[in-house]
Amino acid sequence: MYRTDTCGDLRLSDAGREVTLAGWVQRLRKMGGMTFVDLRDRYGITQVVFNNEVDAELCDRANKLGREFVIQIIGTVAERSAKNANLPTGDIEIIAKDLKVLNSSLVPPFTIEDDTDGGDDLRMKYRYLDLRRAPVRSNLELRHRMTMEVRRYLDSKGFLEIETPMLVGSTPEGARDFVVPSRMNPGQFYALPQSPQTLKQLLMVSGMDRYFQIVKCFRDEDLRADRQPEFTQIDCEMSFVEQDDVIGLFEGMAKHLFKTIRGVELTEPFQCMPWADAMKYYGSDKPDLRFGMTFVELMDILKGYGFAVFENAAYIGGICAKGAATYTRKQLDQLTDFVKRPQIGAKGMVYARVEADGNVKSSVDKFYSQEVLQQMKEAFAAEPGDLILILSGDDVMKTRKQLCELRLEMGNQLGLRDKNKFACLWVVDFPMFEWSEEEQRLMAMHHPFTQPKQEDISKLDTNPAEVRADAYDMVINGVEVGGGSIRIHDSQLQAKMFEILGFTPEKAQEQFGFLMNAFKYGAPPHGGLAYGLDRWVSLFAGLDSIRDCIAFPKNNSGRDVMLDAPAALDQKQLDELQIALNLIEK
Amino acid sequence: MYRTDTCGDLRLSDAGREVTLAGWVQRLRKMGGMTFVDLRDRYGITQVVFNNEVDAELCDRANKLGREFVIQIIGTVAERSAKNANLPTGDIEIIAKDLKVLNSSLVPPFTIEDDTDGGDDLRMKYRYLDLRRAPVRSNLELRHRMTMEVRRYLDSKGFLEIETPMLVGSTPEGARDFVVPSRMNPGQFYALPQSPQTLKQLLMVSGMDRYFQIVKCFRDEDLRADRQPEFTQIDCEMSFVEQDDVIGLFEGMAKHLFKTIRGVELTEPFQCMPWADAMKYYGSDKPDLRFGMTFVELMDILKGYGFAVFENAAYIGGICAKGAATYTRKQLDQLTDFVKRPQIGAKGMVYARVEADGNVKSSVDKFYSQEVLQQMKEAFAAEPGDLILILSGDDVMKTRKQLCELRLEMGNQLGLRDKNKFACLWVVDFPMFEWSEEEQRLMAMHHPFTQPKQEDISKLDTNPAEVRADAYDMVINGVEVGGGSIRIHDSQLQAKMFEILGFTPEKAQEQFGFLMNAFKYGAPPHGGLAYGLDRWVSLFAGLDSIRDCIAFPKNNSGRDVMLDAPAALDQKQLDELQIALNLIEK
Repeated sequence: MYRTDTCGDLRLSDAGREVTLAGWVQRLRKMGGMTFVDLRDRYGITQVVFNNEVDAELCDRANKLGREFVIQIIGTVAERSAKNANLPTGDIEIIAKDLKVLNSSLVPPFTIEDDTDGGDDLRMKYRYLDLRRAPVRSNLELRHRMTMEVRRYLDSKGFLEIETPMLVGSTPEGARDFVVPSRMNPGQFYALPQSPQTLKQLLMVSGMDRYFQIVKCFRDEDLRADRQPEFTQIDCEMSFVEQDDVIGLFEGMAKHLFKTIRGVELTEPFQCMPWADAMKYYGSDKPDLRFGMTFVELMDILKGYGFAVFENAAYIGGICAKGAATYTRKQLDQLTDFVKRPQIGAKGMVYARVEADGNVKSSVDKFYSQEVLQQMKEAFAAEPGDLILILSGDDVMKTRKQLCELRLEMGNQLGLRDKNKFACLWVVDFPMFEWSEEEQRLMAMHHPFTQPKQEDISKLDTNPAEVRADAYDMVINGVEVGGGSIRIHDSQLQAKMFEILGFTPEKAQEQFGFLMNAFKYGAPPHGGLAYGLDRWVSLFAGLDSIRDCIAFPKNNSGRDVMLDAPAALDQKQLDELQIALNLIEK
Repeated sequence: MYRTDTCGDLRLSDAGREVTLAGWVQRLRKMGGMTFVDLRDRYGITQVVFNNEVDAELCDRANKLGREFVIQIIGTVAERSAKNANLPTGDIEIIAKDLKVLNSSLVPPFTIEDDTDGGDDLRMKYRYLDLRRAPVRSNLELRHRMTMEVRRYLDSKGFLEIETPMLVGSTPEGARDFVVPSRMNPGQFYALPQSPQTLKQLLMVSGMDRYFQIVKCFRDEDLRADRQPEFTQIDCEMSFVEQDDVIGLFEGMAKHLFKTIRGVELTEPFQCMPWADAMKYYGSDKPDLRFGMTFVELMDILKGYGFAVFENAAYIGGICAKGAATYTRKQLDQLTDFVKRPQIGAKGMVYARVEADGNVKSSVDKFYSQEVLQQMKEAFAAEPGDLILILSGDDVMKTRKQLCELRLEMGNQLGLRDKNKFACLWVVDFPMFEWSEEEQRLMAMHHPFTQPKQEDISKLDTNPAEVRADAYDMVINGVEVGGGSIRIHDSQLQAKMFEILGFTPEKAQEQFGFLMNAFKYGAPPHGGLAYGLDRWVSLFAGLDSIRDCIAFPKNNSGRDVMLDAPAALDQKQLDELQIALNLIEK
């Protein structure tokens, strides 16, 4: 071993001990014949002192150290005269007796500091240096502690972690698969799993009863911000359960994580919100409940007064921002620009201030009497000093989603989205299907294995769009951290579901025959859910992106710029796989 | 919840309780107006009783149940008159009050019993039914407990579990990669990692200090028995360590696993055997030390007497099988056939019995006097009743390996390889390189990142074949469960290593530039090892194959016969990936 202690270990009680430390040179300062080296490792920083008067040769060698050199020092722990209250080791320093350079370092391309001067691209190319920075490292430490606690909790509840294969079959339903040519089976391909969904259901058929896995999943999608081609799922499934059983057990897991990782004791049951309410009051299936500002619908109040925009609207609704009547014209124009951005797509925004005397002053005063505006004020329970923001549109859902963006933006602007405050809820009663404009057919909102609600099964033939599912999402601070459902365990119902989704019986058999066949041999009722680990870690870490809780993430083109992957193959490799490139000329 | 208790829970102390159970019908017996159903779930089997006199309709419904039907029953726990001491629940039964069929089942294609009538192929196709059998299930339970304990141990030692990417770059050195075409980067491919070797080394460069990961790895090799294209590794790496530190820590982990999983307390340090000794005395770098029968070399004793086979041999050596002088001529002929099988490749076998009077009777008596044979007896310290078996050949290593096979076979025949006895050791001081006949060059015996022994570094230029490495394997019962090494952390030494291995500087830079570059920025001394989880679980489970400790294994053609993967892709998928099939006509 190259050391007796780490750079985070030593305290005043160690004074007088001779120790050996090893680590990286964080910083070197010379002051009046003394050289101070901050020695860093994963566990902390310890100050090492070289005294020119005591050992000029040693001090001289220390003076030649560069940033990020790897060194080993032998010395004696001594109390510092000038203590550093910001460091756990700040009461002591090491009086160096010997120094050995274990490895030198070129000058790093950016500073290894909490606030680095390195840009994103450079940090990704030299990710191994970026990971030396304390904030990035602490994200990985957090991730480790979270997965340990997840496993501890699930193990205590009788779950077995069972590995499912990474080389499976391709199922083009859903997102695109990454595929893997099989050399031993020329012309055939494996796929990397988008999730172990069908395999965990087979484990339930096999009687495993309670399964989990923390597992890599893969989706070949065009990468929007905060998506990675490979991501990690906490995947769970249970047999002989109903929705409330699953919700209860995994709410327990969330509380366990909040307590052990964040030190937050959540005693109340999580709120359960039907999907329809989430859409109606928040315009989102993952509402951020850290703040109110719920939607108020205004069709009844504001229609019929000749304001053409509203007259033609299928939806008029707004939010009330407490105390924001002070917003200037410029701020309001910026908000209007915000909602008109193509990503959001509103046509415009109407606003109204509640003045000190209770009067309402709006941007559409020429159409509305004070009486009508007062009715509107009542609907919001708005008070003097409040700002009312209204959107309208000819598509109810689209307008709600626009209003959702506005609500979140106002939450940001008013400081209502504190990263250290957590609002957890379950969104339940999802619709079974949603209409796809692109495919011109019904698609499963969760996936085709979701159990329709018992009381809605009769509508499967008559009005499938109204069928709700035994599906649930766990939402924290507006982030969907996990979601799941009770699954179909009846092979006939499963076949019917594929039929509604537009599968021919042959296609259903070809793609999912193994599952429907398995259901014929005694499938138990079962259900489960899956969490996005990356997102949950980011949430706990207070990160805006999932990237910095992943050791070696890929960029938006799916490239690992450090490894320079993907890359061209040798012709020999292609030949062995019996495939050829077929590049489209541009 | 569909149940109040599981089928493994109930005891005599529960008598009188009304309970709800759910599970599978294992067996149904009718006896004198009573129907007995053995209800099974993951946790056990509970007997349920239906009484025709009490409720004929209910009993009638029970009589219609088939094997593997999924049912829910409500009833009262009662003491059994005829107790079953083989079942933890054998003191009680459930007097059924109600029965609900949750799902029916076709007749399974093989019996769901510990000793099934299902052949391998059928069991693999219906793996979800095979997994219902207690022996297969208990392997997965064991695997879960082992990974939990590995994580518990490593976490307690300050290791962080850090996920490394699955989509990396291809490195044709070593085994073949599975590759993944990148749609977003047409013409380029990711590779699936054969191991996270270079990535974990980068984590050491990044100062993570102690890393582990239980992770899937991939090798596209022609599948010999007991290989899987995807397998699971317990992958570990540490900084600022020397060989003894790594060995000490992971010997601790092995002892922790033996204690917590197998209930075996190993108090002695594991034996450390130099590779040269392992080859000399056991003909294997993974000797099975559950029994002795070490090799004795006989060149000095048996050469010079005109027996042509020995006169021309580069190696003559043998083993002494205690008490096996009773072997018949037929048994000895079978042993000769065994060593002459093409997989082993010996030309023949010489044997000698030590008779009751101490005389030696051999198959080559016409060449050797009793005096010489007595010398040989002394060399083996053989006693009356022992059997000496001798092989020779013109290639020392090949002959040793043949003798190794013979030794293991004799161990099997004499019952010396008890699956419940464990012999652990470290094999150390491996050669750095081995000569590849196929490639006609030196290859790294472990991998190109292995640190040569300090005292041998000077031989790198003059006599690389003699250079030993800081490499070590953990061997249990003749199985290499894990192996590792101290790594090179100096970019110049690493470059030299690639040169010796026949890389041009350009090729080395192209394939491993990211690592050699990283070494220029303060790489710490580091080392680690990796365990094959599948093998270790099999060893603890007493399995002959790794297959049955994997939930969904692939067959020898790399196929998942249950999922029917791999399979052909849609043309649309190939087009999107800009690749085409290029099948070789046969």
